[in-house]
Amino acid sequence: MPPFDVPEGDPFGPHNLPYGVFSLPGSAERTVGVRLGDHVLDAGAAAHALGSPYASLLARPTLNPLLAAGRTAWSDVRRALTAWVTVPAHRETVEPFFHPLSEVTLHLPFEVADYVDFYASENHARNVGQIFRPDAADSLTPNWKHLPIGYHGRSGTVVVSGTDVVRPSGQRKAPADPAPVFGPSVRLDIEAEVGFVVGVPSEQGRAVPLSAYRDHVFGLFLLNDWSARDIQAWEYVPLGPFLGKSFATSVSAWITPLDALDEARVAPPARTHDLLPYLDDSGEEPGGYDLRITVTINGHDVSECPFSTMYWTAAQQLAHMTVNGASLRTGDLYGSGTVSGPTERERGSLLELTWNGRDPLELPDGKRAFLEDGDVVTLSAWAPGPDGVRVGLGEVTGRVVPAS
Amino acid sequence: MPPFDVPEGDPFGPHNLPYGVFSLPGSAERTVGVRLGDHVLDAGAAAHALGSPYASLLARPTLNPLLAAGRTAWSDVRRALTAWVTVPAHRETVEPFFHPLSEVTLHLPFEVADYVDFYASENHARNVGQIFRPDAADSLTPNWKHLPIGYHGRSGTVVVSGTDVVRPSGQRKAPADPAPVFGPSVRLDIEAEVGFVVGVPSEQGRAVPLSAYRDHVFGLFLLNDWSARDIQAWEYVPLGPFLGKSFATSVSAWITPLDALDEARVAPPARTHDLLPYLDDSGEEPGGYDLRITVTINGHDVSECPFSTMYWTAAQQLAHMTVNGASLRTGDLYGSGTVSGPTERERGSLLELTWNGRDPLELPDGKRAFLEDGDVVTLSAWAPGPDGVRVGLGEVTGRVVPAS
Repeated sequence: MPPFDVPEGDPFGPHNLPYGVFSLPGSAERTVGVRLGDHVLDAGAAAHALGSPYASLLARPTLNPLLAAGRTAWSDVRRALTAWVTVPAHRETVEPFFHPLSEVTLHLPFEVADYVDFYASENHARNVGQIFRPDAADSLTPNWKHLPIGYHGRSGTVVVSGTDVVRPSGQRKAPADPAPVFGPSVRLDIEAEVGFVVGVPSEQGRAVPLSAYRDHVFGLFLLNDWSARDIQAWEYVPLGPFLGKSFATSVSAWITPLDALDEARVAPPARTHDLLPYLDDSGEEPGGYDLRITVTINGHDVSECPFSTMYWTAAQQLAHMTVNGASLRTGDLYGSGTVSGPTERERGSLLELTWNGRDPLELPDGKRAFLEDGDVVTLSAWAPGPDGVRVGLGEVTGRVVPAS
Repeated sequence: MPPFDVPEGDPFGPHNLPYGVFSLPGSAERTVGVRLGDHVLDAGAAAHALGSPYASLLARPTLNPLLAAGRTAWSDVRRALTAWVTVPAHRETVEPFFHPLSEVTLHLPFEVADYVDFYASENHARNVGQIFRPDAADSLTPNWKHLPIGYHGRSGTVVVSGTDVVRPSGQRKAPADPAPVFGPSVRLDIEAEVGFVVGVPSEQGRAVPLSAYRDHVFGLFLLNDWSARDIQAWEYVPLGPFLGKSFATSVSAWITPLDALDEARVAPPARTHDLLPYLDDSGEEPGGYDLRITVTINGHDVSECPFSTMYWTAAQQLAHMTVNGASLRTGDLYGSGTVSGPTERERGSLLELTWNGRDPLELPDGKRAFLEDGDVVTLSAWAPGPDGVRVGLGEVTGRVVPAS
């Protein structure tokens, strides 16, 4: 009988239990849900019914209170949830609080504080360097191997999976054009990334060391950093990306707690340069994750991106982001940067997959240099879990709608 | 008898009435205050006592509800406040709700949503270009005269005037160094700017036109965008400033409503390039403000920065920031960029004032290439007001404390 009886090997089985926020049809009330198979558990209601002390963290319209509660609470709540959905004695009590995923509306799972995006894939950085600076001696900038390059993005335009993305308009100027022109972007792209959410804040003026990563970061999720390459190319010197990125960033509705990914941890690629002590993770637990991200356009596979190839880890990014004393807040989101592997079909952006439009993708519904109106882009992913069972990451999907 | 009897010509007289948030000694309760001379009026308490419908907007711990209420409410509240502090019949009722400024604690006046920083002074951009790219044919990048260059900063480290600023640590690398070194910044700088706060949000996917500036932006204030030039120089290619700026941004405790600055409006400098229609302000009201910002270090004047020389206006910045469909939220903050005038003593950063340290300032307490621990930097400003009376802007001050 569903929902307890998720099929053996389901990537959203009781070993996973990602968190989201949902509402029921006809209701504006949002509350924390936990995904099990193709159902969602109203976690706060279940906690109430079971007399659990965690009801106050779970019967809330965002994940922020749970995020702020800290690592011990995260483990305790996860242990309790695991019991509620696996111990037969709880079944009768808990079952009424499951709802089919198809019947609920999923919302942005947490209130985004600051949003930072990194640039941590060496393959991606080298591809971009070769495309945009073909004459440079090195496709990487001189700082790339010394620090995880990042910048702040726009928190207010982070949207949940399923939200339509309006094609942005803006200025663009090809090098040979005498002046910029204005109009809808003609080079709308994706960036397949993994996002991380901070739970526990830190004090301004104090760095957060590498070793404190698991005390601050609650979980991860798929992220699509939509990018208008033509707008970006004209605006980004000298202060970085702005309108080419700020129109929309899509995130999954499901946050996978780091506690569900212990079997997925892997060492990052061998370091080619000595790292300054605050970034030296040689004495730390493995900082990478063996996630494989599949990118589809209108249901057609276009890429499979190996997150294990990322040069900089989430722990290094956190340490770098705070080493100047910048504080963390509950709900801070940081993206890994585009995930691109070493081979052609492992690239996380159309910029790379089509080599800036030179080699369009041949899809069953036509060629694609960049995205067309109506295109639906979906990222999905899985990681190795316990006993050979996969841990599924909640997909992130979005449809391009015409410029307004 | 104070506080109604502010001296004739006081820059914080009843023609000004900036808004802030304060608490009384021994109390954690924050509420909206309005400055009159050297007193602050508990605006919510006064509204209650007078039976005003605006009590619900004013008896709040941040300005956000007032910001969100919109332009008609802003005007109505301002008109009511003006009456409360000028009409003799209200005096007895209102007077108990005034507190000496020296007795209250001032707080961050609004919850910052997104923070964007622009680069709108042509003098500043040319100075920076000459310092960092001395061999370039043009000290401005090719896009500079076509769009207001901007980038997102860190909202979570915006602090109110008076907050100490911890010297940031980070990586730096001089061109001749074989590898980066780590340590406290040795080129800690300021940027004298004006900040603008958005009240009324906008919808994602819709641009906000130039003409809607006054419908969305509530007011302005002084802002010090602390900058570690050594960290910034090493990190900023290709994605822009990050840790060189994200450690702290100081804002005034007092937000001056745009309604108080009607007499200060001036036309921006003549445009040297045709503007795309969404930035063309030739048919709009004058978009500049005649603000004069004084910068002091430890009480010694080092610069007077004329805001009227800014090439890009706040209305143009708003239109640009949203032209790609990026939405606005209540509490969005955007900075003008460093305000530098055409002459040597009108520059808004030490980078420019000392020409990257080459020509240190001679202050009574010693030479300054960049900031030393213990230095107190203060920005203050005024604008022309009605009948020749100045409109004072609340100062923004901060002391540099040693790296932690």
